[in-house]
Amino acid sequence: MKTLIIVAHPNLDESSTQQFLQAASIDSKVQWHALDNRPLNVAGEQRLLRQADRIIFQFPLYWYSAPASLKNWEDTVLTRAFAYPATGGSLIGKQLGLVISLGQPAAHYAAGAPEQFSLSQLTVPYQALAQRLQMTWLPSFIVDQFGYQSETQKMQLLVDYQRYLTQPSLGHFDGEVDWIVTKLAAINTHQHGPEQQKLALIIDQIKQNEATLEDLQDTLTMLKEGED
Amino acid sequence: MKTLIIVAHPNLDESSTQQFLQAASIDSKVQWHALDNRPLNVAGEQRLLRQADRIIFQFPLYWYSAPASLKNWEDTVLTRAFAYPATGGSLIGKQLGLVISLGQPAAHYAAGAPEQFSLSQLTVPYQALAQRLQMTWLPSFIVDQFGYQSETQKMQLLVDYQRYLTQPSLGHFDGEVDWIVTKLAAINTHQHGPEQQKLALIIDQIKQNEATLEDLQDTLTMLKEGED
Repeated sequence: MKTLIIVAHPNLDESSTQQFLQAASIDSKVQWHALDNRPLNVAGEQRLLRQADRIIFQFPLYWYSAPASLKNWEDTVLTRAFAYPATGGSLIGKQLGLVISLGQPAAHYAAGAPEQFSLSQLTVPYQALAQRLQMTWLPSFIVDQFGYQSETQKMQLLVDYQRYLTQPSLGHFDGEVDWIVTKLAAINTHQHGPEQQKLALIIDQIKQNEATLEDLQDTLTMLKEGED
Repeated sequence: MKTLIIVAHPNLDESSTQQFLQAASIDSKVQWHALDNRPLNVAGEQRLLRQADRIIFQFPLYWYSAPASLKNWEDTVLTRAFAYPATGGSLIGKQLGLVISLGQPAAHYAAGAPEQFSLSQLTVPYQALAQRLQMTWLPSFIVDQFGYQSETQKMQLLVDYQRYLTQPSLGHFDGEVDWIVTKLAAINTHQHGPEQQKLALIIDQIKQNEATLEDLQDTLTMLKEGED
């Protein structure tokens, strides 16, 4: 699975959030593609999109939407002949996700909270785009006030972001465990002797826990069915 | 009441919709302000906003939002120091409305219809902007596939659009009648003799009908209260 991250930020070099995310995105199957002020090469952008399975729009929320550079990209690159299912359909079946960094606390985006509207409401134009192009809409990945996060929170963010970019099935517990096991196994090929054995044991433990959890879940489902 | 129309359209000269609306917008209290590719003069734009009571964003729907030029205008002109209620609040109490022209039928924008989302859902980012800046949100004015409209429909559109731009209280029947009576009275100052008398009679008739309708509405309200 190949992932393309389209990054829209007016001052990318000055954004510690984006620099952190860029460092976390280094993976042979992930392409970091930052928009700048140069005119867009439409054919080149469309080629990148064709090669990707998961397409991510990544941006700080500016007036409840992406910065203008992403809208310009949409208006220019997503030509009807390329994108509309009836005439081109080049994006059918691909995944579309958003990585949104917030200056306000995420909790402010809710009915009754200071911003009044939820992020699910604010991102409807992108959901409509995915629907129109017959793409699969992913749950958005929210970077909640990066500047205020502790080192531990940042480490968690790093792992969650890497999962968001590369885990084949998002939003499922199974996919999450598989992803972690695969990552740990890859790390273990560089370990030796007792270290390698220790990590192998941890991987086994995680797999066994997953099996136990699945059994529990099956039992719960059966109990629930008995009730209904 | 002064109205400022901020028009975002990449090919304004080629748009028959926008040219029709521009011709319909000629009024001493309405300012037509089309965005072009030149760099924005922030102080100049902010001065226009300060002078206006009703601010209209007017655009064709491109990928479920305004063209990039309007987002660029928002990102550039609506500085915190100017717009945020805590620090500037220059737009507090002003009205914000959208004039959206559609290439698809308006009926396509609904759950279950081809576009799946309503225009009220798609315009949430602008509603959030109005909410944040303590502006009054107006119901949007939709131009439904202008190219397919009959001459009669276009005449109705012209009157409705003029009302949207200049009628002080929108969405109320009283305001609508007052607006029409005022317009007809203005026209009548240029009439003479029997023509003038005829139009004066029509104006009287409209006013009397309004009074009758108000009486009916009061009776209905009383009946309803008796029921409850």
